[in-house]
Amino acid sequence: MGLSAHDAISKGDKGSPGLPAAVRCTTERTGGRVRSASETCATEDWCYAHARRDRVNVAVANHQFRLAARPVGLCTRDDFSYTEEPLGEPADGEILVKVLYVSLDPAMRGWMNEGRSYVPPVAIGEVMRSIDVARVLASNNPKFAVGDDVVGIFNVQEYAISNGSGVTKVDRKLAPLPVYLSVLGMPGMTAYFGLLDVCEPKEGETVVVSGAAGAVGQVVGQIARIKGCRVVGIAGGPEKCQYLLNELGFDAAIDYKAEDVRKALKEKCPDRINVYFDNVGGAILEAALSRLARGARIAICGAVSQYNNSGPMKGPSNYMALLVDRARMQGFVVFDYAGRYGEAALEMAGWMAEGKLKSSEEIVEGLETFPDTLLRLYTGEKLGKLVLKVAGE
Amino acid sequence: MGLSAHDAISKGDKGSPGLPAAVRCTTERTGGRVRSASETCATEDWCYAHARRDRVNVAVANHQFRLAARPVGLCTRDDFSYTEEPLGEPADGEILVKVLYVSLDPAMRGWMNEGRSYVPPVAIGEVMRSIDVARVLASNNPKFAVGDDVVGIFNVQEYAISNGSGVTKVDRKLAPLPVYLSVLGMPGMTAYFGLLDVCEPKEGETVVVSGAAGAVGQVVGQIARIKGCRVVGIAGGPEKCQYLLNELGFDAAIDYKAEDVRKALKEKCPDRINVYFDNVGGAILEAALSRLARGARIAICGAVSQYNNSGPMKGPSNYMALLVDRARMQGFVVFDYAGRYGEAALEMAGWMAEGKLKSSEEIVEGLETFPDTLLRLYTGEKLGKLVLKVAGE
Repeated sequence: MGLSAHDAISKGDKGSPGLPAAVRCTTERTGGRVRSASETCATEDWCYAHARRDRVNVAVANHQFRLAARPVGLCTRDDFSYTEEPLGEPADGEILVKVLYVSLDPAMRGWMNEGRSYVPPVAIGEVMRSIDVARVLASNNPKFAVGDDVVGIFNVQEYAISNGSGVTKVDRKLAPLPVYLSVLGMPGMTAYFGLLDVCEPKEGETVVVSGAAGAVGQVVGQIARIKGCRVVGIAGGPEKCQYLLNELGFDAAIDYKAEDVRKALKEKCPDRINVYFDNVGGAILEAALSRLARGARIAICGAVSQYNNSGPMKGPSNYMALLVDRARMQGFVVFDYAGRYGEAALEMAGWMAEGKLKSSEEIVEGLETFPDTLLRLYTGEKLGKLVLKVAGE
Repeated sequence: MGLSAHDAISKGDKGSPGLPAAVRCTTERTGGRVRSASETCATEDWCYAHARRDRVNVAVANHQFRLAARPVGLCTRDDFSYTEEPLGEPADGEILVKVLYVSLDPAMRGWMNEGRSYVPPVAIGEVMRSIDVARVLASNNPKFAVGDDVVGIFNVQEYAISNGSGVTKVDRKLAPLPVYLSVLGMPGMTAYFGLLDVCEPKEGETVVVSGAAGAVGQVVGQIARIKGCRVVGIAGGPEKCQYLLNELGFDAAIDYKAEDVRKALKEKCPDRINVYFDNVGGAILEAALSRLARGARIAICGAVSQYNNSGPMKGPSNYMALLVDRARMQGFVVFDYAGRYGEAALEMAGWMAEGKLKSSEEIVEGLETFPDTLLRLYTGEKLGKLVLKVAGE
């Protein structure tokens, strides 16, 4: 017997990017005949189908992170278990994908909590939920062809089988694949709809965004600039603030680690705040509430400062500013806009092409780093979109 | 010399309702001639003018409550001073009014605090701000005639001089005068615009209102019923709850003093809450947030549970329900709708005429009771609109 699929996967196959070792035809599987280069299966689809046709036992091992315990406060390595299981075969209507990039999102911490939310919590023992860029290895679904690059909720693992629901094809010629987890992915959609639909910014208004150097915040600020607003970003540390000012064209930046945010907002928002896009909650939300302009709109996108609290969440004690300033505070969930992702992606891709909108990703290699890399979302040690690279393209 | 105007006012003149003793012509002032009943000055205007023409010194004393100190926590008698001062004469463009009814509103507590709000705070030493029904005694303003009944911010005192700005004529033939401080006054306008404009209730939706037995809450619930909604009122005590159910046609009532509001909302809002009209803040706001339906609208009208806190306000710790439920929370100030009061009054007067909308006032007599009567707003010991009767009609 030659190389088992399991072995091939475990050892990786860095010499053949794009060709998944797991289902690469081996001489054994083709009856000893050695193909010439031109004879090599053109697509993984063919090979996978071939393998199945021949009833070759492709004992592919899949590795994943499962939720082992509900975290109290900040999540730790012990809240996850790293497991291995044989990968099944896609049934009729299903696709098998190889995960290339795992998106690390602040919302993940919320998904680990029990209780009613906008999505069901990840159950104990379940593979941790994530949005990934993946490549189709086998398809029994007419909407997808082998070799397609797709985005979907494939979770924190190497391979996934999906019925194709919520899975979208993406084009690596239009943008590097990680961008589909960033500006052209959920963070970009979140920024786009949260800012434009929920906050309705008008030209000349002052837009403040917290978590400004994060995946969503960067895009919020840039779109607000494109719309002719004055943009003030709140971020942690001089490096991030400089990035906002020098690379992304923000009008002002506030380093919440070094400055009194209330005072700084007073100084940097002389006409008060028309739009506040909140990614963090806590004291920064209160500071923004204390500086609203009349008729202000606040989008509640997240509360990353609060996700890892072991105690109760802190509500904004000055929420009556909403009354004083005739303001509204509105929550939203990007999934509700799924029907309009295409329109948003088109417009944002256009802005990217014009150089008006930048996508910035920080890519960390190795599925096995997942628990530690995830933590960086909450400790603030990253710039832009944090992406885990699981396999080579 | 006969009876001075000051004396006449101080002693009152309960035998002649509608005829202000202060400016009633006396034999002295008319040169000793005793008028027959038919000769008596037909209007106070005539007399007042007469007195002025004759340069009779009408040393009218005006009594008022002034803010003596900024309250800490619940306001007390000592936060006010009861003062007397001679009443001046209205200058060109001004009117002199006699206050008949003083509106007691929860918002008054907020006006006593220092700091930025939707109106400037009442200054120490200033007459306490209030909205009143009053009668025009003298007018140098072509918009008002002597004898007109008017509503305006005349403050907590017996007489006031006003330039007519923000003063509206009301018709006592259409509704009893206290109703112009209730359903046809600020509370009614607050309910009308807060519910219809801010919350946009739709037929069949569940509307929850806190402070439901209060001046605003009663109207909110009744309008929501008129609009075909299922209405749940939250109030303190069985008497108020029975009133909501039996007199005002609410679908359900929750006694927050006797029931666990969260549990009760679960039970009484099986389809969750589409609209929550908040008058109270605090734990009840949190309970409502925990039971929102998707796309819920929350109007922040007041936070009466918090006004007398000496510590910091309590923000809703579960405000992230706004995100989970794609809900919005919006503050508003009724004064912004001043241009549309007429339209609202017309519609509400129509509903009153049809018997669909009831106005309920509790009238307490005597300006001097002001500090104690005001407290009843915050201790919950009242039903409907609390009005102070300062003088007979």
